[in-house]
Amino acid sequence: RLRHRTGGPHLGLEPGEWWRSLSPNALTPTSTLSGQEALAAQLAQSYHGQGTFLAPVTRQIRWCCGHELRGPTAKNTNVPVPKEPIIFSKFASSIVGPYDEVVLPPESQEVDWEVELAVVIGKKGKHIKATDAMAHVAGFTVAHDVSARDWQMRRNGKQWLLGKTFDTFCPLGPALVTKDSVADPHNLKICCRVNGEVVQSSNTNQMVFKTEELIAWVSQFVTFYPGDVILTGTPPGVGVFRKPPVFLKKGDEVQCEIEELGVIINKVV
Amino acid sequence: RLRHRTGGPHLGLEPGEWWRSLSPNALTPTSTLSGQEALAAQLAQSYHGQGTFLAPVTRQIRWCCGHELRGPTAKNTNVPVPKEPIIFSKFASSIVGPYDEVVLPPESQEVDWEVELAVVIGKKGKHIKATDAMAHVAGFTVAHDVSARDWQMRRNGKQWLLGKTFDTFCPLGPALVTKDSVADPHNLKICCRVNGEVVQSSNTNQMVFKTEELIAWVSQFVTFYPGDVILTGTPPGVGVFRKPPVFLKKGDEVQCEIEELGVIINKVV
Repeated sequence: RLRHRTGGPHLGLEPGEWWRSLSPNALTPTSTLSGQEALAAQLAQSYHGQGTFLAPVTRQIRWCCGHELRGPTAKNTNVPVPKEPIIFSKFASSIVGPYDEVVLPPESQEVDWEVELAVVIGKKGKHIKATDAMAHVAGFTVAHDVSARDWQMRRNGKQWLLGKTFDTFCPLGPALVTKDSVADPHNLKICCRVNGEVVQSSNTNQMVFKTEELIAWVSQFVTFYPGDVILTGTPPGVGVFRKPPVFLKKGDEVQCEIEELGVIINKVV
Repeated sequence: RLRHRTGGPHLGLEPGEWWRSLSPNALTPTSTLSGQEALAAQLAQSYHGQGTFLAPVTRQIRWCCGHELRGPTAKNTNVPVPKEPIIFSKFASSIVGPYDEVVLPPESQEVDWEVELAVVIGKKGKHIKATDAMAHVAGFTVAHDVSARDWQMRRNGKQWLLGKTFDTFCPLGPALVTKDSVADPHNLKICCRVNGEVVQSSNTNQMVFKTEELIAWVSQFVTFYPGDVILTGTPPGVGVFRKPPVFLKKGDEVQCEIEELGVIINKVV
């Protein structure tokens, strides 16, 4: 079991407080979040609102970084450590709350797990330097980058989008932990359990590209807005590269947990 | 020159009227657009608002279909006509208005043109049958799917996203033409001119996948929301497949035009 974060808002924002926090100056001390942008955030809540926690998304989509963290079993994937991040996307429509169900689509037979550290942007920017990047971060949360491997790897002209973006394929939460509450986002234990069995276990110090590098890289191409979310890659241990491969089935319970950030628990239905 | 649409709102919504139209029942007679969703649309405007026309986007991203229309020169691409559409995405942050500038990013040396018919969703839905699909359409508009071929085809692990989604890479407009104002969206002349020279010229009757098929296909994976935009593929004649290849340079003026929908004019800077 990882160490859980405890305490009040000074350690982060608990479920239910997340969206209330999205007002000017709330995301970061230096936030330029405008009233409009705060409104966008509230609006996003209204789309997904199931009463409790809401995943972090405004008008913008999510950014994902498609590589594994370094680790002893990473070489099992036969994929060399990349020199540049591979950027793909999931749609906001795939986001669900931290305790919501993940729906297995009949269109896929190969739905897999991926625990990831998620970075939430708090300040607009373009061509952001790595040395300035952390000023654009509001905080961190836990993501489950659910992935249909058949669609990601073999269908759709090998464009990953569809395999990554089925409805419910992006549980987020359980809270936005503001950056000042995290001692070092690149030194956190990270793990995934399926039905209680540890299937991924690593530390964010194994990330190939750190938060600052990812922000600098992606902001070459596009403007970041408050509420954008970056997923940072997953540790070794996903199902598709096991021998034989293992995939999620109805009734499974997946727990994704990151030290200081908490755990999200999603049943597969 | 194609026939231009003329007249008042009964033939579509002129620049400046687009967003005002985004209120309940305005998108389509059968629209289920809620107050929240209308608010989302207005909000999207406030992000991009430069005073005049606003491109169609709400909280959701855009959907794109990565294939060419059929045509005599399509075989020059050496790409067979696909059996399934290839779905990729551009971010909402790439959208600009119909007369805005397209900014050449220093990161790319191969920026290319693609005129496309854009379908704007007006009604939420999942697993939509092709026979029901048109009920989910609000209307149509013209899109310029600007594409950095180096990033699309050779970089980023061959994931197309980055090459498609630089800021300003998605001019849209000049108006949302409601579907009841278009006699047959699959029988419209479509063309692209660069500095007055016709570089693409076809008809939407050459589309490999019609609007109804695309909506049915994509809604297998994700829920559509009002304001989502589908790009439907481009005719032969893009620059990258010319011999020798031709790319956009500073000072070029690109006109993308579709019969009954109008023309968008974007200077390259």
